[in-house]
Amino acid sequence: METKTINVGVLGCGNVGAALITLIDRDSAEIANRTGLRLEVTKIAVRSLSKPREVGGGAERFTTDALAMVTDPAIDLIVEVIGGIEPAREYITTALQAGKPVVTGNKELLANVGSELFGIAEDAGVDLLFEAAVAGGIPIVRPLRESLVGEDLSRIMGIVNGTTNFILSQMTEHGTSYAAALAEAQSLGFAERDPTADVEGYDAGAKAAIISSIAFGARVVAGDVYHEGISNVGAADIAYAAQMGYRIKLLAICERFEDRSVAVRVHPAMVPIEHPLASVSGSFNAVFVQGGAVGDLMFYGRGAGGFPTASAVLGDVIDASHNLVKGTHASIGKLVRERIRSIDELSSSFYLNIDVSDEPGVLAAVAGVFGAHGVSIRSMEQEGLEEHARIVLITHDAGESDLQATLKELSALSSVRRVNSVLRVVESHR
Amino acid sequence: METKTINVGVLGCGNVGAALITLIDRDSAEIANRTGLRLEVTKIAVRSLSKPREVGGGAERFTTDALAMVTDPAIDLIVEVIGGIEPAREYITTALQAGKPVVTGNKELLANVGSELFGIAEDAGVDLLFEAAVAGGIPIVRPLRESLVGEDLSRIMGIVNGTTNFILSQMTEHGTSYAAALAEAQSLGFAERDPTADVEGYDAGAKAAIISSIAFGARVVAGDVYHEGISNVGAADIAYAAQMGYRIKLLAICERFEDRSVAVRVHPAMVPIEHPLASVSGSFNAVFVQGGAVGDLMFYGRGAGGFPTASAVLGDVIDASHNLVKGTHASIGKLVRERIRSIDELSSSFYLNIDVSDEPGVLAAVAGVFGAHGVSIRSMEQEGLEEHARIVLITHDAGESDLQATLKELSALSSVRRVNSVLRVVESHR
Repeated sequence: METKTINVGVLGCGNVGAALITLIDRDSAEIANRTGLRLEVTKIAVRSLSKPREVGGGAERFTTDALAMVTDPAIDLIVEVIGGIEPAREYITTALQAGKPVVTGNKELLANVGSELFGIAEDAGVDLLFEAAVAGGIPIVRPLRESLVGEDLSRIMGIVNGTTNFILSQMTEHGTSYAAALAEAQSLGFAERDPTADVEGYDAGAKAAIISSIAFGARVVAGDVYHEGISNVGAADIAYAAQMGYRIKLLAICERFEDRSVAVRVHPAMVPIEHPLASVSGSFNAVFVQGGAVGDLMFYGRGAGGFPTASAVLGDVIDASHNLVKGTHASIGKLVRERIRSIDELSSSFYLNIDVSDEPGVLAAVAGVFGAHGVSIRSMEQEGLEEHARIVLITHDAGESDLQATLKELSALSSVRRVNSVLRVVESHR
Repeated sequence: METKTINVGVLGCGNVGAALITLIDRDSAEIANRTGLRLEVTKIAVRSLSKPREVGGGAERFTTDALAMVTDPAIDLIVEVIGGIEPAREYITTALQAGKPVVTGNKELLANVGSELFGIAEDAGVDLLFEAAVAGGIPIVRPLRESLVGEDLSRIMGIVNGTTNFILSQMTEHGTSYAAALAEAQSLGFAERDPTADVEGYDAGAKAAIISSIAFGARVVAGDVYHEGISNVGAADIAYAAQMGYRIKLLAICERFEDRSVAVRVHPAMVPIEHPLASVSGSFNAVFVQGGAVGDLMFYGRGAGGFPTASAVLGDVIDASHNLVKGTHASIGKLVRERIRSIDELSSSFYLNIDVSDEPGVLAAVAGVFGAHGVSIRSMEQEGLEEHARIVLITHDAGESDLQATLKELSALSSVRRVNSVLRVVESHR
């Protein structure tokens, strides 16, 4: 097998970039042996040349002129790991238009202008690959694009944010408070100093938009995704969930309906303990896929971190290099703008935790409100606390708008002190 | 996007073949829409034309002349789902040599003569794809071949036989005996009337050989695989495992060592309850992959059944069709014959369940035998039964040959009545 050399230019030398360059520098001979492709990271575009770098190579390996690198005829393929929308979008567009395949792990970019970039790649006849953009090192993009392209996929549920899964796992396994678990995640480097993007579900939402696009062939952008974060999940909810046989997880849920409309949402949910997603703990990620023929699948692994993410980038670099040598490229097909269903149009089973006055007839009054809105109760428990009582219940499948109307009327009842929490409940597996 | 028609010839119309043809007949327009490929099952080769079939189409769709079908210039691509080595090998060889890509789910064939067939495909410049041969509908072959081709994979552990996982799950969850669980698996159609291939680990062994080949680029055949089945796993072992925080699973374990030698084995093992493989129950399959950069991954889903397996075949048919249209093909690379380590060269932690005389000094005598062979004991418990005592222990990591020598000497001790069972123990996850 003849060995072809592929000169790679890398945009960015942070956590993922440095890990990728380290892997390629170390394993280049082994990779050449296995694939017939000798990968060489020829150039690395960085913002500052004076910052010390973990990767080897002389000063000539680094440049601050990213645009010159992406148009340099000596560079065959571009890896973008700088993140954010601009200037990543400009660099990628320029590289694709110069006929260079691009590998990116940039979820924010793809969840906002992915459709535009896929179009540019298609017109240029080169690859734009992005395995690392969803669930880090877990191979999920390629299985969805290739292995499952013939499947009628109805629903995909993912734990795609390691920070929030770590926080919820600490709360579940060690009884840690939300604030303490968040502080621990920050001290371990799992969470940013401003954790909003993680804990409010924006990061998971971007990934959900990308998953929906590739799984359903639908154009879904970050702004289409409904999201609720985990900052309101309390220790009591975690404890009630455990008692009732559930674990609370932040899920990204992508659904396609028979009329081809699509719903994409991120919110905490109660997952039955026997469901494969329930045992995904710590900073691990998993994506659960439901197909018409294949049934239920799950893909599990490290959703973040320099080396796991670099592994996904490397797989794409090899794939894109093969295609470049063969003069071919993968195609994502045309993404169709299907109708996006709003959260009000969906239905679910719900868990509610309600504090009420400890007086006769309250349970009947509360149950009556549910009944009046057609929301049927599956199980209900009342416990006496010091000065009041608490009702914990789970409904049967109910429309979101019916549940909202129920909540509104409940709040108006004099015997209802406070609706402490409302969580959606995932149906049982098997 | 211009639509290309691909005429598919299917060898075999059993469970998987019928499901595949049903899927293609039903979803052909949708698949054309998504992929630009119009798949048509033009011909189906069967043994008997008189047997009633679940798939539609007139009599002209069926033929008993398989060789004429695979050489027919009107057929672009061949799917082989008849199983067994001959005549599948002859048909596939002929098809490949006629320049037709082949998709197969035939694990027995690939685990025995895969290397030869991959060579023929490579020489002919066409695809030989086989996602369905390992773990049914779970996308594992493509992720290993493509996404993880740049990974340094050290170990892969799989639950790749649904029948035995169903039996062990029934024993664990419902306290069913082995015989009753096997009978239930047979009545549900999970197990054959002669269950040897499943319960003695031959089926899992064939899959382990294929996994090793693609993960390590090593030529491994079914005969290289060490195997022990589950027929000796007793209710007591299941119960002790549960008490100690383990579940018993039949695992296929593929390992590569630093000297590039390879070990491939199938045996029941105690899996720590927090390990992702421990919660894979019923007839589900899962493959747990340990990579140098990516860390731990797991792929979970239905390992058998007509539609899940047909889903994997369909993904390959679409992939091979794309390649056919583009005039390219996937390459598995040259499989190298690495040294195969025998089971005696491996090491593991072990669980032992030993019946001994209920007399003073027995524990010390037993412990002494372990010590004399350098096998260190991690935990040990003794319980009094009616007329004798039972020692249940777990060792630290120990060489297989040291353990065998220990067992031999234990049997010679007058105070040891019987070594009831010996099981390998998988190390903890995380």
